[in-house]
Amino acid sequence: VTVGFIGGTGPEARGLALRFVRAGIEVVLGSRTPDRAARAAAECRSRLGTMDVRGALNREMLPECEVVFLTVPWEQATGAVDTLRAEFRPGQVLVDVTVPLRFAAGTPERVELAEGSNAERIAKHVPEGIELVGAFKTEPAHVLGEIDLPLDCDTFVCGDSAAAKMKVMDIAARVPGLRPLDAGPLVAARTLEMMTVLAIQLNRSHRSKGGRFRIVGL
Amino acid sequence: VTVGFIGGTGPEARGLALRFVRAGIEVVLGSRTPDRAARAAAECRSRLGTMDVRGALNREMLPECEVVFLTVPWEQATGAVDTLRAEFRPGQVLVDVTVPLRFAAGTPERVELAEGSNAERIAKHVPEGIELVGAFKTEPAHVLGEIDLPLDCDTFVCGDSAAAKMKVMDIAARVPGLRPLDAGPLVAARTLEMMTVLAIQLNRSHRSKGGRFRIVGL
Repeated sequence: VTVGFIGGTGPEARGLALRFVRAGIEVVLGSRTPDRAARAAAECRSRLGTMDVRGALNREMLPECEVVFLTVPWEQATGAVDTLRAEFRPGQVLVDVTVPLRFAAGTPERVELAEGSNAERIAKHVPEGIELVGAFKTEPAHVLGEIDLPLDCDTFVCGDSAAAKMKVMDIAARVPGLRPLDAGPLVAARTLEMMTVLAIQLNRSHRSKGGRFRIVGL
Repeated sequence: VTVGFIGGTGPEARGLALRFVRAGIEVVLGSRTPDRAARAAAECRSRLGTMDVRGALNREMLPECEVVFLTVPWEQATGAVDTLRAEFRPGQVLVDVTVPLRFAAGTPERVELAEGSNAERIAKHVPEGIELVGAFKTEPAHVLGEIDLPLDCDTFVCGDSAAAKMKVMDIAARVPGLRPLDAGPLVAARTLEMMTVLAIQLNRSHRSKGGRFRIVGL
């Protein structure tokens, strides 16, 4: 499986890419700017000493990847999907990792969306034949990027297609220290997005950047 | 500090009581029926071989406890607070542990409440001078009741009074294996109640009863 990133130059994408590439997964980092894609891929290659990652324009990356991560800032997610509409191919899985968040007087807070979650909002823009999955919403970019830090956490995967969730869970399961858990239908993204806000608030009060979830006792 | 339970005969209350009593905290299990309160307390005493727990009518227990747990079924919570209105004493802390849940065709799902969470719903019924805290919403009764099972998890405490949260966190911190975390204002109960539904769903798909949360990396 080749994994692509729409907006692959931000910290969440680069962190996920590092973990995936090290797990032996082929990765293409997409960007609207060829230079930025090339730089992000070069940084990833030099950190890992491997060649299994390259940069490309979003619209060039998209048709050739089975599973595509949407890693743009949350408020740009629907626009990015709309812009790239013609480049999707039926059968692809789109993975939304975004969390609708704003900072009010320095404090992170969740943005209430009429759709309930950003994943559900994005779902209304996803072309026919593409399955949307919400996942990796609760992993801090900071932790993903510290490539030698054990993840030691769970990733919660939600969506309305069991087959699509399975593809994403298979990818997650290849990353050491990460346990994928099926969190139910796409509407569960509401819970996951709220959990991320809680983790960010706990990070701030504990002066950490690494708070993430693990379910004990399953 | 003496800890009371309104509706102290159910599994969540009995599990919490076991953990608290073993941690050296004095507990009063309240009930509407003296017999049921006495039986629950006797069971707790015999399991722990200690005398530091007794049963009482809810209305007798309430005036003498600094911190009172509301452990009735979620849909009876506001009614219980209304019924006991005259027995509250200013300065008391009321701890809501409820989660609004129903089973639809055997599947647990969250009940959407206009107030956003059951904690916020209960807040509208709490008498003046009583501080409401949401806590222990994510710990399975089953795990609490297995007294020799290490808890090995976090409990999330939310509320609009820092002093009241601190009292509840101090109680939680006395229980071995349990780390209290300040989850923010009472509105965070929405997140905690949704997390509990997620944990119950994960329990079902993993044939477990013990799923609970731990934040790694704080």
